[in-house]
Amino acid sequence: MKIITSMNILRQEIQKHKDSVGSIGFVPTMGFLHEGHLTLADEARKQNEVVVMSIFVNPLQFGPDEDFDRYPRDIDRDRELAENAGVDILFIPDAKEMYPDELSVTMTVHKRIDVLCGKKREGHFDGVVTILAKLFHLVQPSRAYFGLKDAQQIAVVEGMVEDYFFPVEIVRVPTVREEDGLAKSSRNVYLSESERKEAPVLYKSLKEAAQMIESGKMSVDAVVIKVRDILQNETSGKVEYVEAYSFPQLSPVDDLTGEVIIAVAVQFEKARLIDNIIILLNEEGKSACLEQ
Amino acid sequence: MKIITSMNILRQEIQKHKDSVGSIGFVPTMGFLHEGHLTLADEARKQNEVVVMSIFVNPLQFGPDEDFDRYPRDIDRDRELAENAGVDILFIPDAKEMYPDELSVTMTVHKRIDVLCGKKREGHFDGVVTILAKLFHLVQPSRAYFGLKDAQQIAVVEGMVEDYFFPVEIVRVPTVREEDGLAKSSRNVYLSESERKEAPVLYKSLKEAAQMIESGKMSVDAVVIKVRDILQNETSGKVEYVEAYSFPQLSPVDDLTGEVIIAVAVQFEKARLIDNIIILLNEEGKSACLEQ
Repeated sequence: MKIITSMNILRQEIQKHKDSVGSIGFVPTMGFLHEGHLTLADEARKQNEVVVMSIFVNPLQFGPDEDFDRYPRDIDRDRELAENAGVDILFIPDAKEMYPDELSVTMTVHKRIDVLCGKKREGHFDGVVTILAKLFHLVQPSRAYFGLKDAQQIAVVEGMVEDYFFPVEIVRVPTVREEDGLAKSSRNVYLSESERKEAPVLYKSLKEAAQMIESGKMSVDAVVIKVRDILQNETSGKVEYVEAYSFPQLSPVDDLTGEVIIAVAVQFEKARLIDNIIILLNEEGKSACLEQ
Repeated sequence: MKIITSMNILRQEIQKHKDSVGSIGFVPTMGFLHEGHLTLADEARKQNEVVVMSIFVNPLQFGPDEDFDRYPRDIDRDRELAENAGVDILFIPDAKEMYPDELSVTMTVHKRIDVLCGKKREGHFDGVVTILAKLFHLVQPSRAYFGLKDAQQIAVVEGMVEDYFFPVEIVRVPTVREEDGLAKSSRNVYLSESERKEAPVLYKSLKEAAQMIESGKMSVDAVVIKVRDILQNETSGKVEYVEAYSFPQLSPVDDLTGEVIIAVAVQFEKARLIDNIIILLNEEGKSACLEQ
């Protein structure tokens, strides 16, 4: 594995791979790698000749009250994990190199942001698309890998790729789960013992929701209410949202065809958990659980 | 020459050229080709294995009071001229394909725009960077060719390319001139006979300015005043601006090193003419006429 911290060296490396016509799979991360990230690298490994992973805690996507300074970092451990995951090029740039100067052109996200977690994170997705545009140009990947745990991020990134015809395929990778269904997250360690026992209810409620819609007996609105009831009754956490949208547009579900996401966020005492499920509704209104 | 109107077909063609590792030179235009455009194609031809030209009158870069509907179009003539200029792929997309939907992510230019012609054209350069980002992703050129006649456009595009690390080299191509020095422009036909005789004064005054700076006897500010005097005395037109900036930053010339642009705009009765000269000042304050 090559570890590169300089943009120009990265460019030269990428050009070598472009010249030899190897497809490049790209896994952008903010480091502090966990099994979710490694699954992205595995997928990239399967589908491409070269795997590039970036580790960059992007200041532009943190709000002034968010935890940029406290964001966990462990480069030595990350390096070892990336190496073991078969990453060919690990790109760890400096903030000064990624943002050498105040931007002369800015990118602003207008759609898919006023819902789910985006409601509370003004400007967050502007920072996300800005850094991804930069990284996509540097790495020139054939495919870029994103976890469906952050479904809203995928929706926004797909919007950017469609708008600007980026020559990259966005690959949606299913959420990695514990055996009892809890979505893996660095934040799970903040759960108390009893909260940890309740936490699988998030995924359980989403699976029930998918079944209810598939049975054709309930509207999406009724299902959302039902999921909220389950979460309120079976966890001690505060239900922050239960929302359903067409995916990836994140607009109201007006007809029962295409992909629909049901997403939840529950605030426990010290941990805020999110999860989602995406179902594909065919024209007969039948559904199939598409992802996760 | 292949003529392509579909984005997906263009993508396939470009991929073929990428796979065979031929460098792609790209000439984006709004059509109604003149010698300036053909010079760009010539340069692209010299430096690349494949030349792609696009013809697209980009609605997004026209203000509500500007001449989008009246903008001259002659696709049959353009096709012939492009063919003769050695263009390999002529891309003539439909506005619906380039802008299929309201953008979910927008690009906004903040620097290099509040000077020269940009002062009067609010939003113009937002439209320019938006369409170029789209076209750069579709064509994936190694080099893109722009005429120095539109020096401010080059400055803005270079800003975008630097900010977002687009893997493309912006090639600045000197302005094509008539024998008497008048910069070629479709709008020159609107000059009256007597105005046409005065018009070479624009370039003459710029060359004098370069010499004055090179002599080291005059400050840039003094030279700007001098150029304005020449234009006012020797033409019947109204001097719209004479401005000097560091290039491509388009910021005030604070020290006499690096590139400096002196740009002028003169409104004649029916034609508005623009011209500019870029000089390179070395550390001794000496200058050399760099471009044009």
